[in-house]
Amino acid sequence: MASKKAVVRKMLDAVRAAGRTSLTAPEGKAVCDAYAIPVPQEGLAKTAAEAAKLATKIGYPVVLKIVSPQILHKTEAGGVMVGVKNPADVKKGFAQIMARARKYDRKAELVGVQVQQMVGGGQEVIIGAVSDPSFGKLVAFGLGGVLVEVMKDVTFRLAPASKEDALSMLDGIAAAEMLKGVRGSEPVNRAALSTMIRNVSQLVADFPEIAEMDLNPVFASKKGAIAADVRIVCDWNPPAPRYRPKHDDIVRDMNRIMKPDAVAVIGASDEAGKIGNSVMKNLINGGYKGKIYPINPGAGTIMGLPAYKSVKDVPGTIDVAVFAIPAKFVAQALTEVGEKKIPGAVLIPSGFAETGNVAGQEEIQAVGRKYGVRLMGPNIYGFYYTWKNLCATFCTAYDVKGHAALSSQSGGIGMAIIGFSRSAKMGVSAIVGLGNKSDIDEDDLLTFFEQDDNTHIIVQHCEDLKDGRSFAEVAKRVSKKKPVVVLKAGRTAMGARAASSHTGALAGNDRIYDDVLRQSGVIRAKALREMLEYARAIPKLPTPKGENVVIITGAGGSGVLLSDACVDNGLKLMAMPPDLDAAFRKFIPPFGAAGNPVDITGGEPPKTYQNTIRLGLEDERIHSLILGYWHTIVTPPMVFAKLVVEVVDEFRARGIHKPVVVSLAGDVEVEEAAEYLFDHGIPAYPYSTEMPVMVLGAKYRWARGAGLV
Amino acid sequence: MASKKAVVRKMLDAVRAAGRTSLTAPEGKAVCDAYAIPVPQEGLAKTAAEAAKLATKIGYPVVLKIVSPQILHKTEAGGVMVGVKNPADVKKGFAQIMARARKYDRKAELVGVQVQQMVGGGQEVIIGAVSDPSFGKLVAFGLGGVLVEVMKDVTFRLAPASKEDALSMLDGIAAAEMLKGVRGSEPVNRAALSTMIRNVSQLVADFPEIAEMDLNPVFASKKGAIAADVRIVCDWNPPAPRYRPKHDDIVRDMNRIMKPDAVAVIGASDEAGKIGNSVMKNLINGGYKGKIYPINPGAGTIMGLPAYKSVKDVPGTIDVAVFAIPAKFVAQALTEVGEKKIPGAVLIPSGFAETGNVAGQEEIQAVGRKYGVRLMGPNIYGFYYTWKNLCATFCTAYDVKGHAALSSQSGGIGMAIIGFSRSAKMGVSAIVGLGNKSDIDEDDLLTFFEQDDNTHIIVQHCEDLKDGRSFAEVAKRVSKKKPVVVLKAGRTAMGARAASSHTGALAGNDRIYDDVLRQSGVIRAKALREMLEYARAIPKLPTPKGENVVIITGAGGSGVLLSDACVDNGLKLMAMPPDLDAAFRKFIPPFGAAGNPVDITGGEPPKTYQNTIRLGLEDERIHSLILGYWHTIVTPPMVFAKLVVEVVDEFRARGIHKPVVVSLAGDVEVEEAAEYLFDHGIPAYPYSTEMPVMVLGAKYRWARGAGLV
Repeated sequence: MASKKAVVRKMLDAVRAAGRTSLTAPEGKAVCDAYAIPVPQEGLAKTAAEAAKLATKIGYPVVLKIVSPQILHKTEAGGVMVGVKNPADVKKGFAQIMARARKYDRKAELVGVQVQQMVGGGQEVIIGAVSDPSFGKLVAFGLGGVLVEVMKDVTFRLAPASKEDALSMLDGIAAAEMLKGVRGSEPVNRAALSTMIRNVSQLVADFPEIAEMDLNPVFASKKGAIAADVRIVCDWNPPAPRYRPKHDDIVRDMNRIMKPDAVAVIGASDEAGKIGNSVMKNLINGGYKGKIYPINPGAGTIMGLPAYKSVKDVPGTIDVAVFAIPAKFVAQALTEVGEKKIPGAVLIPSGFAETGNVAGQEEIQAVGRKYGVRLMGPNIYGFYYTWKNLCATFCTAYDVKGHAALSSQSGGIGMAIIGFSRSAKMGVSAIVGLGNKSDIDEDDLLTFFEQDDNTHIIVQHCEDLKDGRSFAEVAKRVSKKKPVVVLKAGRTAMGARAASSHTGALAGNDRIYDDVLRQSGVIRAKALREMLEYARAIPKLPTPKGENVVIITGAGGSGVLLSDACVDNGLKLMAMPPDLDAAFRKFIPPFGAAGNPVDITGGEPPKTYQNTIRLGLEDERIHSLILGYWHTIVTPPMVFAKLVVEVVDEFRARGIHKPVVVSLAGDVEVEEAAEYLFDHGIPAYPYSTEMPVMVLGAKYRWARGAGLV
Repeated sequence: MASKKAVVRKMLDAVRAAGRTSLTAPEGKAVCDAYAIPVPQEGLAKTAAEAAKLATKIGYPVVLKIVSPQILHKTEAGGVMVGVKNPADVKKGFAQIMARARKYDRKAELVGVQVQQMVGGGQEVIIGAVSDPSFGKLVAFGLGGVLVEVMKDVTFRLAPASKEDALSMLDGIAAAEMLKGVRGSEPVNRAALSTMIRNVSQLVADFPEIAEMDLNPVFASKKGAIAADVRIVCDWNPPAPRYRPKHDDIVRDMNRIMKPDAVAVIGASDEAGKIGNSVMKNLINGGYKGKIYPINPGAGTIMGLPAYKSVKDVPGTIDVAVFAIPAKFVAQALTEVGEKKIPGAVLIPSGFAETGNVAGQEEIQAVGRKYGVRLMGPNIYGFYYTWKNLCATFCTAYDVKGHAALSSQSGGIGMAIIGFSRSAKMGVSAIVGLGNKSDIDEDDLLTFFEQDDNTHIIVQHCEDLKDGRSFAEVAKRVSKKKPVVVLKAGRTAMGARAASSHTGALAGNDRIYDDVLRQSGVIRAKALREMLEYARAIPKLPTPKGENVVIITGAGGSGVLLSDACVDNGLKLMAMPPDLDAAFRKFIPPFGAAGNPVDITGGEPPKTYQNTIRLGLEDERIHSLILGYWHTIVTPPMVFAKLVVEVVDEFRARGIHKPVVVSLAGDVEVEEAAEYLFDHGIPAYPYSTEMPVMVLGAKYRWARGAGLV
């Protein structure tokens, strides 16, 4: 290991010393050789005999190329011959090339002829590496030519990539089938190709100064893979990794911040309409049981509580300070917070980077780092932690306890979270505003919620990830335990432009986000309502034990649409075994359709729903149920809802937990039925065939990523 | 024209007479020649001199191939030479091929050597034609190789294709860029390629017995396009076109059926719970003002109205008969309906094709055809026509008048339509069940609603189109006047399977549906709720006069998500001209972001929303507005909603109508605000950035298809 690094280190140092940022072809080859990245064998011959000897060693056919510092356009000079097949032709070729080169430029220094292994055939692919401002080094893979250039069919992984990562890239492109051999071609050597990807990823991970690398084309065949061309570009001043506190320190501080026993409100006020007043009201009226210290230059009492001029005057320990003062006073107050050894500051004030005041933000970041104060914000609404009855915010209070922890980079999205949560009676453990993310970011929250027993799902809206690499590492670990949902805004070129004007954040290439989030086990939501529905429904669903989904429907028409939605959401409709098919048929009319969907037909009494749902829960081969209800007089909506809850509860009592989701087609009474079902832990949607399947699909995506199904 | 048809007719007759279904290569060439479809020139040479003469006429290089009935594997026999470049080589080649063939098979009859134009280079594409059970003849186009075979990147048009159709195919594939010249290659000759597509489409349209045609590969270059290989397969018993009544007859009959002055209820009953009782109740309680004739063997009076044993006993004219009797009695009663010259029968009963009783369905179809009675159903819930207060159904009554006409193939989906309509206070003109579609289908409804002034949008759920070609023709015409939305269920392979088990309908290739629906100007919905939201919102939106969309948002975070949604929905965010940018900046805080989205920032008073929205409506360069509202104390939800309505109304009064849609982020009060906005003709959605943009995008798709924007 040390030796291969030493080879490359020496090579890069020489390139740097030469004042270059790009490596020459021989330098690139040497780097590839050190990392066992196959490139064509080659050598320099000074005589025809040497050329023939070299060619025989490399193996035929070979390519011959003139080597001369003065001749840059080799082909123009007649200095290239391809497909040379035997020693005699090599000797003849050597002489011809030297003669033509001499004729082309009488004064040129003719060093000799390069003899190179001739490659080609198989499948053309591209392997590359890029440096992303958020994710750092990434390795890229795609098929050569039109598929990458026109269809943009390329996939990324964080570097270094594991063996599994590298192999997953071969299946991670739309044209993956091409690698398995189509139209009579042979499949590529997956081991060789994925090893090459790994080696490239290791190289760029080992050398931060390698900014870009391109192996294009790589010829992948049954025998192996070889890069015909290598391009390496360096950046001699690579960005330094972002500062990250240690895991245990994050956990310790975040626990004090999110679940404080004592809160200071800097800028607390008795005056209605002031932010410092709203925060005080929310703390007191929200039922927070810890100590509240109003901080105000006027001291006295505020809202009946003794006030202090500074946090330093407070006799006891303080866990978190909520700032409700103008931006220009923040740095000074933050210094006092630091001197008081308060671990966290909730910076509601705006007027920092989002308005162009980058210096102001850097100033408070420096203060925070100096004293070890973690900063939430600035430019945020604050946060809620319901299990402590804590509303550390100037927005409306929210107190429905539950198990979803949500965060948003934007205040508007935060308000939508609160409105939806209240409307849908969605209990939450926490709602957190992250705003400018001068310090505390999504991975700090993940680290906290990971060990917070009140949180069962973590849902995050973000416009960028300041440190995508840390996020990916943490998310990969956390998502094994709890579902993590991310709505990454600025997905599209237009959206990305809006994101820049909004927060000054550089939105990354969305394909990179998409690949890295998936690899990290994150469920990605594409839109706001989708994110909110995931937050509400996913924690209600038990983890499926397998991929077999069965649709039981009273409305055949819903069955078709539910099936469409299954495909859209990557769910597998179970192929119904004959015995199970027969068992279902016993319960449904002769003109009903068994198979999957099980179409029980529309006019059936409650018993038919009961029997078929019971069978679906009973049979171990079935792992999840999607129910399609059709409103009829025979089985009215609430009768249906109650029987579903009854049957599901019966099985829960027996320890049998399977995801059940419901689509209700009917008159307005189905809305009450849907609410009843949701209240009893069964996600149910009126007038929609897409939403129940979408949330079930998300649960599956998570469970697959976590290795649970 | 006649002569080219005569050539092909003669050729096909000969193939048929020979008992074959496939054409030989020379036959295929002859057919292509007749329709000016370029294929390689070729000829048979019996001597070396003839071969050289022929080759010189065709142009070099040429391909030489042995012609012998006994030699099937020409290459194996050494009977093929490619790339022959001059007369001398042709002569030499002729001799060599003949000699090798003789050596290969001493007894073979050597007819001579085929001299063929050698083609290649440029872009490989595929042109083909297929016969679809619903749409009939279609022409297909895609890029050769991996793009068609692995990526399934292919596009279809109804045959014959117009010039515009054919040209649109070149842009209708994902890899369209390839045809414009990438990676240094030259662009293809679009005129030549599209002409070839048109000629193929005309050929298969002229000859129904040509079931399949494949030109693969076609080499398309800057010079032109030429098909290297032609495959034509015939079906000597092509399906007969479906019977379609004449347009004027459809209009006349559908008007009497949908807007009847007299309704008979066959199977009317006083007994609660019976379908015939529910229908009577709905008619009477719904407030229908026309005549109602209960028909029942017991006669007497039913629900206070005189009943008759048969429709034939009714003294006056009847426009439509609603059937509420078991399947087995339908044919007889339908005969009486025919004898009474009633133009339409609403067949609620199930027990026909959907339960396997295909014969029963064919029987009633025959009766309907014999007497000229149009059949709605069987196996339906009936229909509603609100402007006549008509609920000809056994389902719950629905009476909110409006301008959306909806239909569904499935009863369950019909119930979801009713529930959603009621819940969302969506006025409808009609809701129609089509069920088994033994006769009346989507294009009959389109034809009726086209001329129905109460209907402004037509929304249809279907699992198949029995006659996709008629539908496409009618939809193309109607969608120029009124938006047509289609939810085609069974989009996916799984969904298609469920559709088959449900209705016995053969679901077509979804790519064909997708292409034909788009070409017909139809807005396709992918899911149930999406369809319903389109029905509700699209008629509220005025037709945009151009593509320039501007987002004005209080929540920067919503702005980013709304921008993402614009890209997803094919909307163009206007590039803000400097003067307009400056005009917006006057109204927003200095740290707000102008550009597009216009980010007015969160803490602004109503005036800022007013000023910026007014500017957006005033400036003629802006064609549509997307508003992002952020709930604050400064501008509460209802204050915002009212100011938006006020400003929009002010411009409406001045004759300025632009689409405005709203996304509301905030606490639950935003729900009331959204409802208020919707009630005032402004589609608005709480907790969602995707839905307002989705409905605006649909309006644009329609307007573009209708040539209005």
